[in-house]
Amino acid sequence: MTSNADKGLLIVLSGPSGVGKGTVCSMLRKLAPELVYSVSATTRKPRAGETEGINYFFKSKEQFCSMIDKDELLEWAEYVGNCYGTPRSFVNETIHAGKDIILEIEVQGAMQVKQRFPEGVFVFLMPPSLGELRNRIENRGTETDDSIRSRLSVAAEEIRLLEHYDYAVVNDQVELACERIRSIITAEHCKRERIMPYVKSWMEEVR
Amino acid sequence: MTSNADKGLLIVLSGPSGVGKGTVCSMLRKLAPELVYSVSATTRKPRAGETEGINYFFKSKEQFCSMIDKDELLEWAEYVGNCYGTPRSFVNETIHAGKDIILEIEVQGAMQVKQRFPEGVFVFLMPPSLGELRNRIENRGTETDDSIRSRLSVAAEEIRLLEHYDYAVVNDQVELACERIRSIITAEHCKRERIMPYVKSWMEEVR
Repeated sequence: MTSNADKGLLIVLSGPSGVGKGTVCSMLRKLAPELVYSVSATTRKPRAGETEGINYFFKSKEQFCSMIDKDELLEWAEYVGNCYGTPRSFVNETIHAGKDIILEIEVQGAMQVKQRFPEGVFVFLMPPSLGELRNRIENRGTETDDSIRSRLSVAAEEIRLLEHYDYAVVNDQVELACERIRSIITAEHCKRERIMPYVKSWMEEVR
Repeated sequence: MTSNADKGLLIVLSGPSGVGKGTVCSMLRKLAPELVYSVSATTRKPRAGETEGINYFFKSKEQFCSMIDKDELLEWAEYVGNCYGTPRSFVNETIHAGKDIILEIEVQGAMQVKQRFPEGVFVFLMPPSLGELRNRIENRGTETDDSIRSRLSVAAEEIRLLEHYDYAVVNDQVELACERIRSIITAEHCKRERIMPYVKSWMEEVR
């Protein structure tokens, strides 16, 4: 045992729309190359330059339905006529290889994952304040007053879902948020439950 | 809320004798100047250069006994005729000022603190292996074979106490161990329970 790692962890990174999940995840890819990023299955046709198993696992509608039936997806959703989902097998293979895998996902999807993979580490990305979330939604510049109000009220409802998560990370600065996420992963590897089996085997050795 | 900090944490750093608690704590003082280090009360006379409130809180035997009676110590022990203990007030003042405080202590003392301050974060410093702990004890060079065997058997018993801790940090490299401890502190500040009160106040605001 030279480090606190053996089996990997599934880290589910979620949070209200507008909080900056995508930006944090892009920065994490640069700062934390040791992490594996979950690859979605989709019924969408591949676009030029997209590679099977890197950008997506491309599936026919029939294949996708069969994955749903066999409970092979940790979550799935339909979006403008195409299906997207998280294959359980890719997550399992990664963590059994001792690597941590991160899944960035909307709150509705995260709640599905929580049901099917409760041993995941659920991290909720938070705006520094409600006012700041309003600014971020407004500054996208493409929204009417009504749609801003409606998006903000949806976001407030989504923030309420924090109660189902293990951790909340404030996204005040992207690099700081990434550092907090990495700290959470390190700390999770240090939890007593993960080390206790080694100690029990040592005790056998001394006896 | 610009960071995940409000009230500070008490971090109790312990582990079997010979594991390198002192070395890790000295390195932490350099690497983590944001942490406050717990100051012990003692009935020992001050030595040249020692300052009240920095090295120790110096107490008469009567004062120390009164602190025990009033439950003002998180733990205490007698050692070669002098009493040493951890004043609860110093810990409370520090965490209420929003600072994290670290207490390095033997496992017996840590178990006393656990009873009186269960909300502390209990971190157990581990040797990378039982063989490595044997090496460290032997390399002190001052021990007979019998005393090495006896110290190793005590250490094995002490390692069993891991079950009462929140985290185990492997002391394979001192800097790495310090980084893990800092990650644990960061992660603890990100726990959902600490952020939930803010979110509840936001919900009031939106309603």
